[in-house]
Amino acid sequence: MSFKLPSGFSFYSASAGLKEEGRPDILLIKCENGCTATAVFTTNRLSAAPVKISKMLLSKEKIFSGVFVNTGYANAATGRKGLEDAQEMISYVRSFFNLPYSVLPASTGVIGAYLPVEKIKEALKKAEKHTDIELAARSIMTTDTYPKFKVLSGSGYLVAGISKGAGMIAPSMATTLTFVLTDANFSLSFLNSALKKAVEKTFNRISVDGEQSTNDSIYLLSSGKKEVGKREEREFELLLTDLLFDLAMKILKDGEGATKVIKVVAEGFRNKKEALKAARRIALSPLVKTAVYGCDPNWGRVFSALGDAEVYVDEEKLAIYFGPYLVYDGRPVDFKQDEVRDYLKSGEIEITVNARVGKYDSYFYTCDLTEKYVEINAKYTT
Amino acid sequence: MSFKLPSGFSFYSASAGLKEEGRPDILLIKCENGCTATAVFTTNRLSAAPVKISKMLLSKEKIFSGVFVNTGYANAATGRKGLEDAQEMISYVRSFFNLPYSVLPASTGVIGAYLPVEKIKEALKKAEKHTDIELAARSIMTTDTYPKFKVLSGSGYLVAGISKGAGMIAPSMATTLTFVLTDANFSLSFLNSALKKAVEKTFNRISVDGEQSTNDSIYLLSSGKKEVGKREEREFELLLTDLLFDLAMKILKDGEGATKVIKVVAEGFRNKKEALKAARRIALSPLVKTAVYGCDPNWGRVFSALGDAEVYVDEEKLAIYFGPYLVYDGRPVDFKQDEVRDYLKSGEIEITVNARVGKYDSYFYTCDLTEKYVEINAKYTT
Repeated sequence: MSFKLPSGFSFYSASAGLKEEGRPDILLIKCENGCTATAVFTTNRLSAAPVKISKMLLSKEKIFSGVFVNTGYANAATGRKGLEDAQEMISYVRSFFNLPYSVLPASTGVIGAYLPVEKIKEALKKAEKHTDIELAARSIMTTDTYPKFKVLSGSGYLVAGISKGAGMIAPSMATTLTFVLTDANFSLSFLNSALKKAVEKTFNRISVDGEQSTNDSIYLLSSGKKEVGKREEREFELLLTDLLFDLAMKILKDGEGATKVIKVVAEGFRNKKEALKAARRIALSPLVKTAVYGCDPNWGRVFSALGDAEVYVDEEKLAIYFGPYLVYDGRPVDFKQDEVRDYLKSGEIEITVNARVGKYDSYFYTCDLTEKYVEINAKYTT
Repeated sequence: MSFKLPSGFSFYSASAGLKEEGRPDILLIKCENGCTATAVFTTNRLSAAPVKISKMLLSKEKIFSGVFVNTGYANAATGRKGLEDAQEMISYVRSFFNLPYSVLPASTGVIGAYLPVEKIKEALKKAEKHTDIELAARSIMTTDTYPKFKVLSGSGYLVAGISKGAGMIAPSMATTLTFVLTDANFSLSFLNSALKKAVEKTFNRISVDGEQSTNDSIYLLSSGKKEVGKREEREFELLLTDLLFDLAMKILKDGEGATKVIKVVAEGFRNKKEALKAARRIALSPLVKTAVYGCDPNWGRVFSALGDAEVYVDEEKLAIYFGPYLVYDGRPVDFKQDEVRDYLKSGEIEITVNARVGKYDSYFYTCDLTEKYVEINAKYTT
């Protein structure tokens, strides 16, 4: 199956042998005549060199020739040499491909090792031009088990996105490497606000393990090839949110060792903030995540995590549901253990808590915690 | 080996078949002529019935005949009936043993099931009096794999403690069921302040999985049988801290699935609060915990967790050590991977981060995260 790309963009993939010989591991997302760009970055205070340089470039320049991504090496905790390496890398890419504008750097991989600049330069010589979004997505994978991409059509324009990320995913940040491309000619300030809004509703509502990496970034690039008007703004916001939601779910489903996606819905709280805190606290609870993995309708763990969320709750008003099954309603409820156990065997689980003390709702997505998560992370080596 | 108990205390253990037939699962800690009591409780807002009742009794009464503990049932999320059950239970204990003062209730076990009051009453008839602290500790075990107790001698008095707890351990709270007995005749206000101080340095610095239960409590009971003066106050504070530290370490070593205790030391931060935040954030990182489990000197995960701790750090000043091995010193350091890997094979691991931006230090203890933790918690059933 082949997908049309937004006009003006193309890819170059190659294998630099950063992880395994022959596996594509570097990617240039190129915009022929230059693109505008905006991004959301990790709030980790020890951010990686490519994050620092991208921030600096985005604040200084208006037009870019694209983004260059390498896997295998995060180029984090690498100090001045890391900054120099990233600079050298993108300068080389720019001159090698004879690009008129700056290129933004992005990296993912092990922290604390210096970028193998010469190896990557060498590999660029073999880089092949293509428009295969699946191959592009494949070129940025690390512990991912499948490529993550999505293309959506608007009124006369396209939006396409690729993501990588399977562990170290947590909210209040950009959360992963994601690149969204569009040819819709919106103003930079609109693109910027649309990206922030969409991230808040999608990537900031998912977590695999509560970890926030040094490199997480979401870029939005626009070639501006397709004219759009005020009318399309709302449509674009919805499309972008759908696209990021789709990519976020693909990341969760590929969460390290995950077998299920869990949606926690928090209803009836005193305010929006408390609703989100409640949903997030329950979603991040290792005891809730292991109970769902074990198909155990242990609502006591949901109850206990909620009590620990630092939000206003009253146990005599509270209701807890597993999917459609009411399991606590101001007091323990007699429910059919077997039916709920069967429900918990499905791949997408919804847990709802209704505090019944206000009218504010929120939600948060996570995945279950399995032996495999531990195994993967005990073995993934420096 | 038999231990002397503080004067005035004795135990009654029995099996009510709450978990397995024949295994002791209820415990009365009795103080013949009454004792003073103080306690620290969970800050979980959905606290269990026994926590609510103990708080109420401690605020109303001055002298107690002891504490009655049941396992198997947390008596949490049980509403008014839970409160009535707990009241009935302790009233029955009081009249059955003909006790002059109130008895404090404590429970641990599954959330959301009603206390099997009649079963426990029945078992009390078979309860046997003893002064065996190991049997007392054994009588309050749940997923613990060994009994946890400690006895220390002061100048003319004793301090003895028992604990249970293997998962759902997190700080900023009482953290587990722990009962400390002494015969030293200190004032209640002194005992109260000594307990708070000691908990802050011990139980509030450990975590198995970041979870805080509905039932966590630490009680300190004094029979007042031994006269002590101002001189002994400092000694008692130190003994109490040593005792709680010892019990806290026993809990960590028995953390669900744990194979190692990890101490995270945070040095050179701008203030005490940031030092503690840094140590805690690193200790709670699932990626750090799995790396230690896998004996992988992956200091990048320590670096990344620290960056996510919301404290002031500068990567060019920062140093990171695994035990005595410097692995990051403002930049990646060449270190002997094999030696560090060997170090990580030991049962007690120390990770130090020195921010070198101030003079404040702190620490936090945790255990590693293993497949076994997931297995235990996926199977432990409602």
